[in-house]
Amino acid sequence: MRVAIDAMGGDLAPQATVEGALLYDKETVGKHKLVLFGDNDVIEQEIENHHFSKPNNISIYHTTQLVEMSDQPTVALKQKKDSSLMKGLQMHHEGEVDAFVSAGSTGAQMVGSLFILGRIEGVHRPALASFLPTEGGVVLLIDVGANVDCKPVHLLQFGIMGGIFINYIYGIKNPRIGLLSIGEEKSKGNEVVLAAYNIMAAKIPNFVGNVEGRDILHGRADVIVMDGFVGNSILKFAESVMGVFGTTFKRNLGKNLFSLLGAFMVRHAFKEMKSSFDYQEYGGVPLLGVNGISIISHGRSTAKAIKNAIRVAVNMSEKQVNQHILEELKHRGSE
Amino acid sequence: MRVAIDAMGGDLAPQATVEGALLYDKETVGKHKLVLFGDNDVIEQEIENHHFSKPNNISIYHTTQLVEMSDQPTVALKQKKDSSLMKGLQMHHEGEVDAFVSAGSTGAQMVGSLFILGRIEGVHRPALASFLPTEGGVVLLIDVGANVDCKPVHLLQFGIMGGIFINYIYGIKNPRIGLLSIGEEKSKGNEVVLAAYNIMAAKIPNFVGNVEGRDILHGRADVIVMDGFVGNSILKFAESVMGVFGTTFKRNLGKNLFSLLGAFMVRHAFKEMKSSFDYQEYGGVPLLGVNGISIISHGRSTAKAIKNAIRVAVNMSEKQVNQHILEELKHRGSE
Repeated sequence: MRVAIDAMGGDLAPQATVEGALLYDKETVGKHKLVLFGDNDVIEQEIENHHFSKPNNISIYHTTQLVEMSDQPTVALKQKKDSSLMKGLQMHHEGEVDAFVSAGSTGAQMVGSLFILGRIEGVHRPALASFLPTEGGVVLLIDVGANVDCKPVHLLQFGIMGGIFINYIYGIKNPRIGLLSIGEEKSKGNEVVLAAYNIMAAKIPNFVGNVEGRDILHGRADVIVMDGFVGNSILKFAESVMGVFGTTFKRNLGKNLFSLLGAFMVRHAFKEMKSSFDYQEYGGVPLLGVNGISIISHGRSTAKAIKNAIRVAVNMSEKQVNQHILEELKHRGSE
Repeated sequence: MRVAIDAMGGDLAPQATVEGALLYDKETVGKHKLVLFGDNDVIEQEIENHHFSKPNNISIYHTTQLVEMSDQPTVALKQKKDSSLMKGLQMHHEGEVDAFVSAGSTGAQMVGSLFILGRIEGVHRPALASFLPTEGGVVLLIDVGANVDCKPVHLLQFGIMGGIFINYIYGIKNPRIGLLSIGEEKSKGNEVVLAAYNIMAAKIPNFVGNVEGRDILHGRADVIVMDGFVGNSILKFAESVMGVFGTTFKRNLGKNLFSLLGAFMVRHAFKEMKSSFDYQEYGGVPLLGVNGISIISHGRSTAKAIKNAIRVAVNMSEKQVNQHILEELKHRGSE
């Protein structure tokens, strides 16, 4: 298959994006065609920097524009048609490539994916998912920012799509689907959640009911469904916690040599803990529900993250996730 | 003044509640009248256990019922009128005491406060606030669970009430009021937040605009306003994080003697960090907007937490917080 990579997108681009593609190519021994979208000269230079001669299965698609983080997504969609981001999506839509990966502006990628690729038949609203580590593994939160003001049927569909994704891509069979609420009882929640509970209980076989904020990290569900406003707030909060903890911990250590030595001795356990909160392992998550494969990677994606994002893209295609979404939503995707 | 304490409410009651009252009394040298609501024999026994002879300014108000955590709040309101919780609120309403403190069922206390005490004139919806530690101090989140499906004017009032509370009770002058959203720009948010932004910008002098989830712990605002569904989810998530981190950290340490020794050496910094996430320092927060003083303490409140909660109750009365709410809402509390 052919995967398009937005070589210009992300804080560490084009270095990390090009290197990530090269790493993936090396691991898979040139099995897939990779197309790097972006400035031809810049990309060629990057490839040279990595002392690679460009393998035959890697090509460059020259684009002249760049979507900046400050660009309004809808404006970028209209005015930056020749950006690596929008052109990559366009070529995917036209069937020139089979998937698209970017670590660029999440907002622009969401808007671009939605308008250029369109939606899978039956999907009301494509959704963005993200992993958080739990005590025993990971949990997928969906939606984490693509949709606010969701209706109950949207939450139902998020649950179905999230379940399909981690089943086929991460091998979690019969994933347990939960609904974020402010109490475990089905009588707890806001209007939308109360209604969503009943629909999800009727339509999702492995629905485990409400999950409270305190249980997100305890692994009581494999997928937790929520409105994108709530999901975005919780995800960003979670991402900031490690940093704040590090700062507070260091301050508390003070200048005491004894405790500084202790900190040195536990640095490994700390690093492990931090890496469990590391998005790089997951690489990226697809905008689920769009009629194509658009993998959204973290803005700070390293080469390793990009490599893993390409793997997700390939798996999405090989495991026919979108086909499963289409079929499942036909059966269970409406009220 | 006279403070009612629900001696039977909370995981550690009646031990912690009675001891907390005694500690407060000792610190303030019997300055205020404290009334312990609950079973007379049980409370007298507790006082004896602490080797105190009951000071004259501490009295017991005998009640025969108990609100259990499993009780539906509205049912408790109707059927447990002689519980320490409902009777304490009733006596406060009748002017027999000037404030009420409980670590019992938060739901029952909210419902009881709302229906027995009523609302301050002009308040649409009383709100529950809670503190989180930040890199440089604390931040007050409001609402954390009293209200779901909020309207923009509710969020405006939460901001005003939260600002008055931390100004008068915690001495934070001109507190910065923020609005939780999914982006800093005023164009980011859901329908309610977009509308609330404009009202808050017009009515709150120290409105600092939108605050994202990632900035909650960075101290960009002193008060952050949110719908109770979101606030409850974030607060519970935050409360669970320290526990999950501890577990993960310990697991990562493994059986390695070197790292176990290191952990021993940094235990103090860890403890400090954990205590900064400790609700006990704050003791409790009032249900802001009810026509009275109803301090809601954490279910796991220790004697120290109860002591601090009584202090908040006394300060609420002495600083005339409800009077300020009444006046401020008259000026700025509507659209």
